[in-house]
Amino acid sequence: MAEPTTTTSDLGDSPDIRRVTVVGGGVIGASWAALFLAHGLEVTVTDPQPGIDTHVRELIDGTVPVLRGLGLRTADLTRHLGFEPDLAASVRTADAVQENGPERLDVKRQMWRTIEENAPATALFATSTSGIPATDIATALRRPERLVVGHPFNPPHLVPLVEIVRGEHTSEETVERARAFYTSLGKNPQVLRKEVPGFVANRLQSALFRECVHLVAEGVVTEQELDAVVTSSIGLRWAVAGPFQTFHLGGGQGGLPHFVTHLGPGMEERWDQMAREHVAFDEATVATLVEQARDFGAGIDQLAAERDRKQVALMRALAETPAPDTDGV
Amino acid sequence: MAEPTTTTSDLGDSPDIRRVTVVGGGVIGASWAALFLAHGLEVTVTDPQPGIDTHVRELIDGTVPVLRGLGLRTADLTRHLGFEPDLAASVRTADAVQENGPERLDVKRQMWRTIEENAPATALFATSTSGIPATDIATALRRPERLVVGHPFNPPHLVPLVEIVRGEHTSEETVERARAFYTSLGKNPQVLRKEVPGFVANRLQSALFRECVHLVAEGVVTEQELDAVVTSSIGLRWAVAGPFQTFHLGGGQGGLPHFVTHLGPGMEERWDQMAREHVAFDEATVATLVEQARDFGAGIDQLAAERDRKQVALMRALAETPAPDTDGV
Repeated sequence: MAEPTTTTSDLGDSPDIRRVTVVGGGVIGASWAALFLAHGLEVTVTDPQPGIDTHVRELIDGTVPVLRGLGLRTADLTRHLGFEPDLAASVRTADAVQENGPERLDVKRQMWRTIEENAPATALFATSTSGIPATDIATALRRPERLVVGHPFNPPHLVPLVEIVRGEHTSEETVERARAFYTSLGKNPQVLRKEVPGFVANRLQSALFRECVHLVAEGVVTEQELDAVVTSSIGLRWAVAGPFQTFHLGGGQGGLPHFVTHLGPGMEERWDQMAREHVAFDEATVATLVEQARDFGAGIDQLAAERDRKQVALMRALAETPAPDTDGV
Repeated sequence: MAEPTTTTSDLGDSPDIRRVTVVGGGVIGASWAALFLAHGLEVTVTDPQPGIDTHVRELIDGTVPVLRGLGLRTADLTRHLGFEPDLAASVRTADAVQENGPERLDVKRQMWRTIEENAPATALFATSTSGIPATDIATALRRPERLVVGHPFNPPHLVPLVEIVRGEHTSEETVERARAFYTSLGKNPQVLRKEVPGFVANRLQSALFRECVHLVAEGVVTEQELDAVVTSSIGLRWAVAGPFQTFHLGGGQGGLPHFVTHLGPGMEERWDQMAREHVAFDEATVATLVEQARDFGAGIDQLAAERDRKQVALMRALAETPAPDTDGV
């Protein structure tokens, strides 16, 4: 295979990536596999677990309503799907490897050493890790510049975000190839400027959830009431404009600078108050959370299917929203 | 006017509320006025500011694209709009009063004393305050049971949430009338179980924003990159399923109990780390925030119009999403 060119525009359709090896046949691996297949790629799933092929095929079947909803090809979806239990054998002709192994540094280091020894010298190396820095994994590699974090927001076949996070030695070429690859799959990759624990989306999610747990533990709202508050206000807002743009527009003609100057001090006070709250998964809190979780009613699968259906509707609506008129009204 | 019946079903269409007085002709007041008018109510705006009628009419004109997008009536929208600079005179025949005065306790107490003295004994009293407890305002009233917080998420004509917050003496009848009133306007009112500073939505927003400011101040992402992370992951999620349901479904078949047991300890560690971060609107942080805000590019009005158009599209899509099949797939 020819060395790929390195300009972004040339890589926009990722012509250099036709065969992808998915390491790990769990929920994340199967979801990646489904997305790759729906984009016409050849996929090899590697996982030593017995019966993994049946399991992965079932998981891929489960993604079909969403993939179809997103306008992707689902006829004969698994025609180019293969299984290879041996990791070394599975990567020999791979153009890209997306690893979804256990979240243990020693396991990942071992896996990536094997992958590097057996994959083509030009293959793109990405790990789905949500918590282990590429820097730490890459010390196992002869060419640490080849490895990058490509962390999806679950499930990858549906949610657009992929966080691309460099390790200390990751090359710009690797970053740009990963960006082009995920973009070609309809994803919205975001390249972080620093390696930070938890990356961005999960840190933000944790920050919000702390206050969620506090409000439920204090009896201000139930879980379901809090969810209703979010879906009918900030969730709806943040689906179309992020927190900074929201406050930029909330500051009137003065924008974010006005907001920061006038409402910043009050918000700092709130931060200090929240920092003083004791929030933990102690026995009483866990009991409340578990008790109220019963009130979600419908089964997990049904709730998940309904959520996904709504999210597909929302993504289609956003994609179809016409551009603003030139007069900005 | 007859004393209204108190069962929720009877009040579902709020037949007892035809005439609403909107106190304060700023952005929030005008947005409420537009929503009330689009639902066929008679609206009197009271505000002593000279030229307020022209200002409010302009603001109401600006809401038309959104109201139309939501399927509301906008022809001859201001036919039943009136202005009365004198607060006492403005409430004499009101069925409901929605107050949007300055966020100062003394001003609100004075206003509500005047309102109570001059409004019909059956009128519903709601304050849009985002921060002052109904308990504190209501000490100015002879019948404190009549006053409730009806806090909209800005702008009220678009965002579904209204937080209903009781004061210490607010009656259940007042709460239920407020709930029925806002429901009849297509809003999604949520009744808080406790009076807590900042209520729920703004507390959650502040909690998330603290970490947003931290990540930008640390140079992990820019404002625009962070916004893109949110709109393409958690924002999209939280528009269709709140934080608790998200983690309920993220825990697999074990649901939220599984999530709390297995991922709770890791999240607590993250909370502790975040609590130790120093986040403030200090000089360097403000400089970074102001500098990056320039990169939003388009003007405030154009960005706001685009956001609102997208949000309308999203709300329509959610409203039109078909119910799940009976097999839950």
